Amino acid sequence: MSDSPQANIGVVGMAVMGSNLARNLASREGNTVAIFNRSYEKTQTVLDEHPEAGFVPASTYEEFAASLQKPRAAIIMVQAGRGTDAVIDELVKVFEPGDIIVDGGNALFTDTIRREKAVRETGINFVGAGISGGEEGALNGPSIMPGGSDESWVTLGPILKSIAAVAEGEPCVTHVGHDGAGHFVKMIHNGIEYVDMQLIGEAYDLIRRGTGKSPAEIADIFAEWNTGELESYLIEITAEVLRQNDAETGTPLVDVILDAAGAKGTGAWTVQTALDLGIPVSGIAEAVFARSLSSKPAQRAGASSLPGPSTTVSVDDEAAFIEDVRRALYASKIIAYSQGFDAIVAGAEQYGWDIKKGDIAKIWRAGCIIRAQFLNRISDAYEEDSSLVALVLAPYFRDAVEGAQEAWRRVVVHAVQAGIPTPAFSSSLAYYDGIRADRLPAALIQGQRDFFGAHTYKRIDKDGTFHTLWSGDRSEISAVDAH
Amino acid sequence: MSDSPQANIGVVGMAVMGSNLARNLASREGNTVAIFNRSYEKTQTVLDEHPEAGFVPASTYEEFAASLQKPRAAIIMVQAGRGTDAVIDELVKVFEPGDIIVDGGNALFTDTIRREKAVRETGINFVGAGISGGEEGALNGPSIMPGGSDESWVTLGPILKSIAAVAEGEPCVTHVGHDGAGHFVKMIHNGIEYVDMQLIGEAYDLIRRGTGKSPAEIADIFAEWNTGELESYLIEITAEVLRQNDAETGTPLVDVILDAAGAKGTGAWTVQTALDLGIPVSGIAEAVFARSLSSKPAQRAGASSLPGPSTTVSVDDEAAFIEDVRRALYASKIIAYSQGFDAIVAGAEQYGWDIKKGDIAKIWRAGCIIRAQFLNRISDAYEEDSSLVALVLAPYFRDAVEGAQEAWRRVVVHAVQAGIPTPAFSSSLAYYDGIRADRLPAALIQGQRDFFGAHTYKRIDKDGTFHTLWSGDRSEISAVDAH
Repeated sequence: MSDSPQANIGVVGMAVMGSNLARNLASREGNTVAIFNRSYEKTQTVLDEHPEAGFVPASTYEEFAASLQKPRAAIIMVQAGRGTDAVIDELVKVFEPGDIIVDGGNALFTDTIRREKAVRETGINFVGAGISGGEEGALNGPSIMPGGSDESWVTLGPILKSIAAVAEGEPCVTHVGHDGAGHFVKMIHNGIEYVDMQLIGEAYDLIRRGTGKSPAEIADIFAEWNTGELESYLIEITAEVLRQNDAETGTPLVDVILDAAGAKGTGAWTVQTALDLGIPVSGIAEAVFARSLSSKPAQRAGASSLPGPSTTVSVDDEAAFIEDVRRALYASKIIAYSQGFDAIVAGAEQYGWDIKKGDIAKIWRAGCIIRAQFLNRISDAYEEDSSLVALVLAPYFRDAVEGAQEAWRRVVVHAVQAGIPTPAFSSSLAYYDGIRADRLPAALIQGQRDFFGAHTYKRIDKDGTFHTLWSGDRSEISAVDAH
Repeated sequence: MSDSPQANIGVVGMAVMGSNLARNLASREGNTVAIFNRSYEKTQTVLDEHPEAGFVPASTYEEFAASLQKPRAAIIMVQAGRGTDAVIDELVKVFEPGDIIVDGGNALFTDTIRREKAVRETGINFVGAGISGGEEGALNGPSIMPGGSDESWVTLGPILKSIAAVAEGEPCVTHVGHDGAGHFVKMIHNGIEYVDMQLIGEAYDLIRRGTGKSPAEIADIFAEWNTGELESYLIEITAEVLRQNDAETGTPLVDVILDAAGAKGTGAWTVQTALDLGIPVSGIAEAVFARSLSSKPAQRAGASSLPGPSTTVSVDDEAAFIEDVRRALYASKIIAYSQGFDAIVAGAEQYGWDIKKGDIAKIWRAGCIIRAQFLNRISDAYEEDSSLVALVLAPYFRDAVEGAQEAWRRVVVHAVQAGIPTPAFSSSLAYYDGIRADRLPAALIQGQRDFFGAHTYKRIDKDGTFHTLWSGDRSEISAVDAH
C-alpha cells in the first residue's frame, strides 16, 4: 500500500488476461502498475507469484485511484458485459475529469459508443480498446486497437506502445478513431479470423480427401506454405495442430477431436453489423454458418445418408492439385480481406471515424491471430491509394487473383464434383465473379419487385425512378416516390 | 358518424395497404368496417371512392372506439416504427380491457414482443400480424400470420379467415403463436423470398449466358417450369417480367432496368436473427449480399476489368442444360426452405412459441409472394413427422434432392468454369455437402482454437472437455471449464 501516487497505469481484473497484461506493462521501462481485483485474494496471488513486477496493489477503488498519477489511466480486463459496466460505475466515482478508463475486453462496439457517451459527461475519458493475441499476446505483446478521444491518446499512446507487439520496428497499436472505433475494428479482425480459419479447414479437407495424405504429411505442406505468400500465424499453427498425435490412441489428434466448432459470437456480430451497413461479407457469413452447421449432431446424423456424387473424382497430379489449393486459398483470402476492409470503410463512414486503413493493416502484422506477411501488401495498397474502392482492385491483389483464378476454379470444380463442402472457397469465387460481372440478374430481381410490390426500378439509359403498370396496360410511368 | 357501435372491425391508416385491407374486410359477409386516418381528408377520399364498402368513418380516436362493437378489434396499417407506437398509444387510451389492437405492418418481431408486453399490462390484447401479398393481396386475400394471445384469436380468427387468401378450400391464416410469433414467421417468409428470387435470377443468368436465348425465349422456359414441381407465383411473374418489352426502345425491359437490387431490410433481419439463434441460413445471407453487391456501382466499375476464365465453356446440349438448371433450382430451393424452417424451429424454441410447421407451410400456399405448390409437400412432411430434424431429410425431399444432385453439381461446375456468379446455387450445394459429411474440418478449427485461445475441445471417443498444453509438453489435460 502506498501513500503517494506511484503508478502511471492501473489494471482492474486479475484473471489470466488481466494479470498477463499487468505483467507485460510492469516489464516495460517507465511503467509502474497499480492492480485491483474485486476479491483481494486474487490480487494477493498475483503479487506473490510475480514479485519482480513491482505491482502497487489496492484493496478498494479509492486506494486504487489514490495510487495512480494524474491523469489517471486504468485498463479494465473483466468479462465483457455487466461486469464491465459495474467496474466503470465504480471507477467513475473515484476518478476525476481528464482521467482515462480503458475497456480492454471484447465489447460490442455499440456498447462502447454508449459507454463512451455516458462517461464523457463526467469529464472522464473512456477508451474501448480491442486487444488481440490471447493470453500469450497479453503477456508478450498484443495487437491493440484503441478508440476514444484524442486527449486520452496523449497519455495512453506511449503506455500502449510500450507493451504492444512489434512488427518491423513499429508497435502494433494506433489510435483507431473516436468512441467505438477500436472495438469495431477488433470485431472485423475477428470476423476475418473466422474466414481465415474456415479457408484453411477447407484446404486441409480438400488435400486430405483428394490425395489421402496423412495429417502429418499435410502439416509439412502447411509448413512449406508458411515460407511463402501465405506466411501467417494461422498457417503456422495449423501445421502444429496437424502434426500433433494423440498420446492415448497414437492417432492424429485432429482425428479424435469432435468436429463441432464452437464460437464466441464476434463472427456473428461482424456479419450482423455488415448487414446493417449493407456490406457483403459473404465469406465471414459462410465461415460462421459452417461452424453452426458442424454443431448440429442430430441433423448431421440424419443427413449422413444423403447421397453424394455417384462417380469418384480422382486427383491425377497431386503436386499440381496441392498448388491449386494453395492458390485458391490465397485468392479466397484476398476476397475475405477485401470484404472486411469494405466493412471498415462503411463503418467509418457511418459512425464518423477517421480510420487509416493502412495503419490497421500494419497493427495486425504482429501480436494478433490473423498476423501475416500479407498485411504489408494491404498497407502498401492503401498507402498508394487511400481511396481504393476495393482491396482486390489494388494492382498487387489484382495480379495475385489473376494469377490464381484458374487454379481457384479448378479447386471449386473438384470440390463440387467430389462432394466436398467448400462454402468459403465457393462463396469467395462467386463474389469475385459477381463484382466483376458486366450485368447481374439483379435487374430481373428489380423487375420482380416492381411486379409484386410496385417497388419501382431505375433504368440504365436515363435518370429517374420508374414503375410498370403490370396489372394495367403495362405501360411505364415515372414514379418519383418509391412505395 | 354513428351513435351506436356498428362495426365489428376497424382499420387505422388509409394509405394503399390500409384502404385495400379495409375494402377487403368490408366485402366479406358479416363485416362492418370502421376506418380512421390521422388526417380525415384521406378517410373522406376512401369514403368517396368506395361507397359500396359501407365504411363507418371516424375523425377522432374516441369516435373510432365508439363505433366498434366490444370486444373492439382494430388493425393498424401504418408505416412500421414510431408511427405504429404513436397509434398504439392513442388506441390504448380509448380501448378497454379485452379489446384487441392488431399491428398489420412489417414490424421486427422483437418490437412486437416489446409492444405486446406493454399493451398486455392495460388488459388490452396486442396482436402482431404479418400480412403478405402486397397491395393486391391486401385487397383480394393475403396470407396472414397473426401472433398474440389465445383470447384475441377467438374474436380475430373468424374475421381474418373471412379476408385471407384461400388455398384448396382452407383460409391462409392460422394463430401462429403468442406475442411476436406472427411477425417472426413473416420475417422468415421474407428471408425465403430473397433466396427464391436470387435462385431464379441465377437460373435466368445461367440460361441466358449459357445458351444465348432471349429474355422472351427464357420467359417460355419459366412458363413451362410453372406447370411442374417449380409451380409458384415467383416463377410465374418471372415469365411475365422477362416477356415484357420496353415500349421506348423495343428491347426487353430486363435489359434496360438498372441491375442494382434494392432491399427493405427484412432479409437482413432474418440473417441477423438466425445468427443469434445459431442457425445457418447461408442461402438467405448470400441472397441479401448479392443484392448489396449489385448496388455498389463504384466497386463494380472498378472490378469490371478483373479477369474471368481464359477458356470459353460452351453448352453442348441446350435442352439438357436447361433441365439441369431446373433441377439445380429445385434442389437449391429445398435447401433454402430447409434452412428457413430450421430458423422457425429454433425461434419457437427460443421464444417459447408453439408453432405448427405444417400449418405455416399451408398458409403460405396462397396470398403471399412465395406461394407455391411445393408448400403442400412441406406440410405433408411435417404431418408425417412433426419432429423432423431437417426438412431436406423428409422422404419426399430426400428423393427430390437425390434425383437432382448430379444436375446441381453440373450446373455449379458450369457456372464456376464459365465465370457466372451463382452464390445461392453454390452455397446451397456447399451446405448440402456439409450437412451430409461424415467428418468436417471443424475438428481442425477446434484444434486451432485450442492452440491460440485455450478454447478446449471435445473428443469423439470419450466424454469431457480437453485442452492440449500447446506451449508446454503438449500433453492433454481435462478442462472442466472452458476459458
